[in-house]
Amino acid sequence: MVHEEDGRIGLKHGAGGRAMRALIKEVFVDRLDGVPGPGIGLGAMDDGAAIAFGDQWLVITTDSHVISPIFFPGGDIGRLAVAGTVNDLAMMGATEVLALTCAVVVEEGFPRADLERVRDSIEATCREADARILTGDTKVMGRGEIDGLVLNTTGIALSRRVVPDSGLKPGDLIILSGTAGDHGIAVMACRHELALEGDLRSDVAPLNMMIRQALEAGEDGVIAMKDPTRGGVVSALCEMAQKAGVGIVLNGPSVPLNAGVRAAAELLGIDPLMVANEGKALIGVHAGAAERVLSALRAHPFGRNAAIVAACTEERAGRVILDTGFGRRLLTEPEGEPLPRIC
Amino acid sequence: MVHEEDGRIGLKHGAGGRAMRALIKEVFVDRLDGVPGPGIGLGAMDDGAAIAFGDQWLVITTDSHVISPIFFPGGDIGRLAVAGTVNDLAMMGATEVLALTCAVVVEEGFPRADLERVRDSIEATCREADARILTGDTKVMGRGEIDGLVLNTTGIALSRRVVPDSGLKPGDLIILSGTAGDHGIAVMACRHELALEGDLRSDVAPLNMMIRQALEAGEDGVIAMKDPTRGGVVSALCEMAQKAGVGIVLNGPSVPLNAGVRAAAELLGIDPLMVANEGKALIGVHAGAAERVLSALRAHPFGRNAAIVAACTEERAGRVILDTGFGRRLLTEPEGEPLPRIC
Repeated sequence: MVHEEDGRIGLKHGAGGRAMRALIKEVFVDRLDGVPGPGIGLGAMDDGAAIAFGDQWLVITTDSHVISPIFFPGGDIGRLAVAGTVNDLAMMGATEVLALTCAVVVEEGFPRADLERVRDSIEATCREADARILTGDTKVMGRGEIDGLVLNTTGIALSRRVVPDSGLKPGDLIILSGTAGDHGIAVMACRHELALEGDLRSDVAPLNMMIRQALEAGEDGVIAMKDPTRGGVVSALCEMAQKAGVGIVLNGPSVPLNAGVRAAAELLGIDPLMVANEGKALIGVHAGAAERVLSALRAHPFGRNAAIVAACTEERAGRVILDTGFGRRLLTEPEGEPLPRIC
Repeated sequence: MVHEEDGRIGLKHGAGGRAMRALIKEVFVDRLDGVPGPGIGLGAMDDGAAIAFGDQWLVITTDSHVISPIFFPGGDIGRLAVAGTVNDLAMMGATEVLALTCAVVVEEGFPRADLERVRDSIEATCREADARILTGDTKVMGRGEIDGLVLNTTGIALSRRVVPDSGLKPGDLIILSGTAGDHGIAVMACRHELALEGDLRSDVAPLNMMIRQALEAGEDGVIAMKDPTRGGVVSALCEMAQKAGVGIVLNGPSVPLNAGVRAAAELLGIDPLMVANEGKALIGVHAGAAERVLSALRAHPFGRNAAIVAACTEERAGRVILDTGFGRRLLTEPEGEPLPRIC
């Protein structure tokens, strides 16, 4: 049980970590779960749901996007919404998007030109992901009733195969598809108006084409995927370890980091492994498939820095161990992302 | 073109009438539309989208719910979200819900007990509609960044048949499934703390079971459906008339009205035909099917007051004519719902 002292929702309950998962489980999942037939429903707390559909799976995911500011270095709320939803589908193994929906909640007084700029970004990102917005909704709230713009996108896909986030076994390896922490650090630096050397940009991008290549190369060797969004690489690995009941040894020095992110993270006192990525995937593979998957990822622009960053063990089942290169320590899953409204 | 004087979004742009449709068309539809293959996409601006799927249709709809207050006489935001989405599917002819998603955006400090109360309502309404929430999302915004709670629900259904909102022809009749204006007037009375005689309650309800009965009874005689939500019966009829290119004569005295709604509407100076309903359908039928559909509706508790309220003509194509019983006048579609945040 989560015991909030005052029975009220806190920022941590939206931050992608332990507190959020507990709230969602207690308030929603334990009461609303129920998949008709085989499939992945609310109870799995995966990136989305999957229901059997003839000899295929209908994969469904939904996300609301509340990021502040809505325009940030490397992207904006429109790109984030499309990419976030496309990526959640891709993390389930569904790389061909059948349909997206887009629901807009906007504050009275919001500049129409900004709405059009967001629309342009939605359009461009859809094209990149070969996805289409098929239906939408528009609501306006009064001044001060909502801060700017909130987007919800729901994605629907058909897939011959579903990859859960719980499929790891001891001996499996975990690939991170590129540098860690770019989105979280870029947004935080932007909010704090940090003037930093280097090019701090969010990594927000739709990954379905890259993931398709990885799945084709890895065949049945890809056994678990998750995108390290809110709460970052650490939070995602903790969740994968718990669900699979394996220990995960994270090899710290092997995690790709942009130099600018490393510098800004030090300055801000934030661990880049604990902040959101919006264009990265953690891909669990059988050891024998690792090199094939890695090559396929590196052949794609979004995966050129992909690296094997962790290995699964029988020891410390359900926990993540950080190997710093100098020693090992157990990681505690963060309560949540240190930055509110990061996605 | 909508020329807002200052290039900013106004409340009217979320109010379900002319201003909203113009904004959506100009900003989103004209740029993002594109259905792969046959179907109903963004361009149709129908209650949802439909794409061909084997010998069936995959029907998809999305809605964000921003109602204030979140608990109101006759319902709450949870019931509204589920019913609203189920009804949009049903209005496309899809009465068997395959999956619902539910994304929650909540303000820091929101009482957890209220969230649980909303969850209970979601659960109960899902049961009524034989629908299930398969996946969700939770975001928290800071105090003052959002007013309380916003829910997004997306619905997915498979249907052998799709009923558009544009299918009317001269000679067809239009049935309203019950009393008009209950939701809008109840919420407005509640906001203004009007102490009125009678039982002013929102009509919010999932209509898919009732619509299924109507479709079975009417067979191919049901040719257009729309639920008169934001902007009410008048706005929905104006849209149906424009899309079909027919004139619609609305027989004022035949529109069912609750006595309490009539009284409150007079007091508030609001036309009950121009405010939102959340448990009503406008059903266009071939004249020969009207009595069968009417009987089927009246056999369902939500349709017991169903009545034929309008007829389609060749004259005044695209317009709605009100027959008051004393004379006829052309109705102008309202710019939008007079009440912000009504759904």
